[in-house]
Amino acid sequence: MVLLSGGLDSYTTAAIAGQLGFSLYAMTVDYGQRHRREIEAAKGIATSLGVCQHKIVELDLRRLGGSALTSEIAVPKSSDEVIITAGRIPVTYVPARNTILLAVALAWAEVLEIFDIFIGVNAVDYSGYPDCRGEFITAFEKLANLATKAAVEKKGKFRIHTPLLHLSKAQIIREGVKIGLDYSLTHSCYDPDERGRACGRCDSCRLRLQGFAQANLKDPLKYMPHREINRKPKI
Amino acid sequence: MVLLSGGLDSYTTAAIAGQLGFSLYAMTVDYGQRHRREIEAAKGIATSLGVCQHKIVELDLRRLGGSALTSEIAVPKSSDEVIITAGRIPVTYVPARNTILLAVALAWAEVLEIFDIFIGVNAVDYSGYPDCRGEFITAFEKLANLATKAAVEKKGKFRIHTPLLHLSKAQIIREGVKIGLDYSLTHSCYDPDERGRACGRCDSCRLRLQGFAQANLKDPLKYMPHREINRKPKI
Repeated sequence: MVLLSGGLDSYTTAAIAGQLGFSLYAMTVDYGQRHRREIEAAKGIATSLGVCQHKIVELDLRRLGGSALTSEIAVPKSSDEVIITAGRIPVTYVPARNTILLAVALAWAEVLEIFDIFIGVNAVDYSGYPDCRGEFITAFEKLANLATKAAVEKKGKFRIHTPLLHLSKAQIIREGVKIGLDYSLTHSCYDPDERGRACGRCDSCRLRLQGFAQANLKDPLKYMPHREINRKPKI
Repeated sequence: MVLLSGGLDSYTTAAIAGQLGFSLYAMTVDYGQRHRREIEAAKGIATSLGVCQHKIVELDLRRLGGSALTSEIAVPKSSDEVIITAGRIPVTYVPARNTILLAVALAWAEVLEIFDIFIGVNAVDYSGYPDCRGEFITAFEKLANLATKAAVEKKGKFRIHTPLLHLSKAQIIREGVKIGLDYSLTHSCYDPDERGRACGRCDSCRLRLQGFAQANLKDPLKYMPHREINRKPKI
């Protein structure tokens, strides 16, 4: 079972699980994220990976608020430096998101009697997100084995796999390209335009572009052209 | 923050939290349970307790299957003995339910910067449910404090309160009646009729009726009349 968001990390994670010999069941939670193009990307990725089943579950976190990704808080952008810095948690943090995603995946995994759950969390670039750290994952794994009938009845022991946990974005991209992944299928931007093109300036775009640059590879994604500022208006 | 299902336990839990001096924020997760009358009961209870806010979040667990409460698996009934026995997990178990409920409550609690979460789990009568045990609650509390920006930034420490954990159903009812609760507001039945009347025969009804009997109190709820079997048909 793999949590598939439609982004680069979860795509790579799913592909790695496939390479390890697992049959893939993909779970996407539509939590009302602003970047809804992600859901469409997740469908394309699931098809391309030949998953056994792809389940999309709706849970509208917009009703709870508290994040730039699900409410009216502005997505921060910068044109000169990467905004995410270690030790500071960005406003794009979604309260308890990975706890919720893993809980819903756990429910479906239990029904299917699948005990290996993959999630593309990464502690290097997103060091600000508390629910992307190894200690969070370890605590959830422990919880899963206490919470469920399947584990208590010893049908299996849940394992939460995080193959990207200690990789940099550049390392993830290199790994993916090596196993033949098509990153044009993915969507990373927090704030795309109406045509679905990435902004190139939000945290997520900038980490992605920086990753491709450091890996000496070209990002196949379409970005919206940057408007020049202070251009003289035509009369 | 209290998880309010519309049942007797969560009502009593919320009232106890109020007695302890907490302002109440109620969260109900509409997970597609068969006994949808519960949601209406939760609304009535929230009003009667004068909560500051009552949030109902939809998450359709029917799409995942695996439980008599959310799928087409029949709700077991017996007319002669209580079906739940220690050590056996009933088919009314909903995969990872309390993990999901607590995760969603945690998200809203984090947004509101509320650090006390109440849940009406009970390890005595429902000893079969793995996610009603104290060790599960302890593991979730630990997870909550690793998972969230609010805890990592030391705005507070999450506590999961379970005032009913070690009480029998009769003790819960006695406690509730003592503080003036109106249990006619609650709904417990897993399989009510179209008029919302309780069946009196499912696990949940039987535990409730047994609890009232042991407490020497009368259940104010309306039950459907039991049809006599093998009655001669009228010609």
